[in-house]
Amino acid sequence: MSKNRPIGIFDSGVGGLTVLKAFRDMYPGENYIYFGDTARVPYGTKSERTVIRYSIENSRLLERFNVKLIVVACNTSSSVALDILNREFDVPVVGVVKPGAVAAVKATRSKNIGIIGTEATINSGSYRREILSIDPFVNVFEKSCPLFVPLIEEGWIDDSITFEVAKRYLSYLKDKNIDTLVLGCTHYPLIKDLIQKVLEGVSLVDSAEETVKMTAKVMNGNLKKDGEGKVKILVSDLNSRFEKIAEMIMGDTFQIEEISIE
Amino acid sequence: MSKNRPIGIFDSGVGGLTVLKAFRDMYPGENYIYFGDTARVPYGTKSERTVIRYSIENSRLLERFNVKLIVVACNTSSSVALDILNREFDVPVVGVVKPGAVAAVKATRSKNIGIIGTEATINSGSYRREILSIDPFVNVFEKSCPLFVPLIEEGWIDDSITFEVAKRYLSYLKDKNIDTLVLGCTHYPLIKDLIQKVLEGVSLVDSAEETVKMTAKVMNGNLKKDGEGKVKILVSDLNSRFEKIAEMIMGDTFQIEEISIE
Repeated sequence: MSKNRPIGIFDSGVGGLTVLKAFRDMYPGENYIYFGDTARVPYGTKSERTVIRYSIENSRLLERFNVKLIVVACNTSSSVALDILNREFDVPVVGVVKPGAVAAVKATRSKNIGIIGTEATINSGSYRREILSIDPFVNVFEKSCPLFVPLIEEGWIDDSITFEVAKRYLSYLKDKNIDTLVLGCTHYPLIKDLIQKVLEGVSLVDSAEETVKMTAKVMNGNLKKDGEGKVKILVSDLNSRFEKIAEMIMGDTFQIEEISIE
Repeated sequence: MSKNRPIGIFDSGVGGLTVLKAFRDMYPGENYIYFGDTARVPYGTKSERTVIRYSIENSRLLERFNVKLIVVACNTSSSVALDILNREFDVPVVGVVKPGAVAAVKATRSKNIGIIGTEATINSGSYRREILSIDPFVNVFEKSCPLFVPLIEEGWIDDSITFEVAKRYLSYLKDKNIDTLVLGCTHYPLIKDLIQKVLEGVSLVDSAEETVKMTAKVMNGNLKKDGEGKVKILVSDLNSRFEKIAEMIMGDTFQIEEISIE
């Protein structure tokens, strides 16, 4: 891969593959290294300090593969570690929060935007900050949804219980007159239909596509649309769960290798 | 603590505090060191190899405190790592699986026993093996319940959604004529009432108490009932979630300290 330095992407686990897929769809000519930290997943319930440490270690691992840029596909990491990563590493580091915020501000007309994510993402206030820095007159309503990830990983996607959980979590947002909701966790696009059923008529923002666009800008458009690049998927714990959900997201099977992070 | 070497207890997170509590209730004169690996929790969805590595690291950490014995309060670790820990460490290592199996065989009359636990515990077949080694004529029915831990950690204890999840998971066991169910995860006693509602008339086995009894045997009864020993609670990631649930389990507040495991 030395001729064509790969794009490095990391996530706490499997969810960031939605971002890898968006990259592949738009720039299939690039080489990609994906790292999922499945041995320490989830990040969303852990402290800021621990998530920062993990994010640095993951980026160091990607650096070993001579990546030309690092995409932080994890909302929790992007929320608490992005500035530090940008200071610590020489290559550009792009997160998913800013692109999601940009897309949400573009989409809203009522100026009432909802954000859902893990506890750590919501507690960090990262989306609120990014949105208000673009447009200080937007109202931001945030709600953490800790059970969405385990429900999705259990495969209960189009499911009555998941629907009840969504109704409970999202009821807070229902009477806030939001017209735009940011899916602030890479797992959530997998239950997009169900969330849409609870919040009818609300635009759902999935940061993956917007992240690809922002990355292309950061790289001054120097990303390959043509050809077929290589994809390497690495995890810190190889288990059947990851493989199952990876196939669901990517719509294809890839060889997945285990690598030690500690 | 040098005069009275402490008992070391570890778990993947907060659930093992139910075991610490059972010890304290029966032997308040002992000193205890509890370690919850909250930076890498949960173990139940991870591979055997990773859980073994974590279990060895946790035991090494307890060893540094000069413990006289190690109690593996985590069902997943007990299921996949106990033999290895007993080979690797000089002090006795006691798990929660065997005590649970002993208690279940004592309790059953129909000779049909159900086991619930995390994916890793159920996939390991540890309870089945222990039960059949005591009584080969028992029928064992196993079901993993991956959502119970996140639901409990969300605080949805006496809750309609958790009840629906329990009905779905346990329906498989309902028509098996079981009269005894092992709660094969230290979190599950917290939703005992709800499980009992789904499986009326079934005896629920919580390994915590039985583990204390087995430990006392291993120590030849040399455990202090009198006096008031010290309790030290350590975690690899200090977060408010742990503190909240710890208080719920222990019925008391303790100082909780963060310690690096990696």
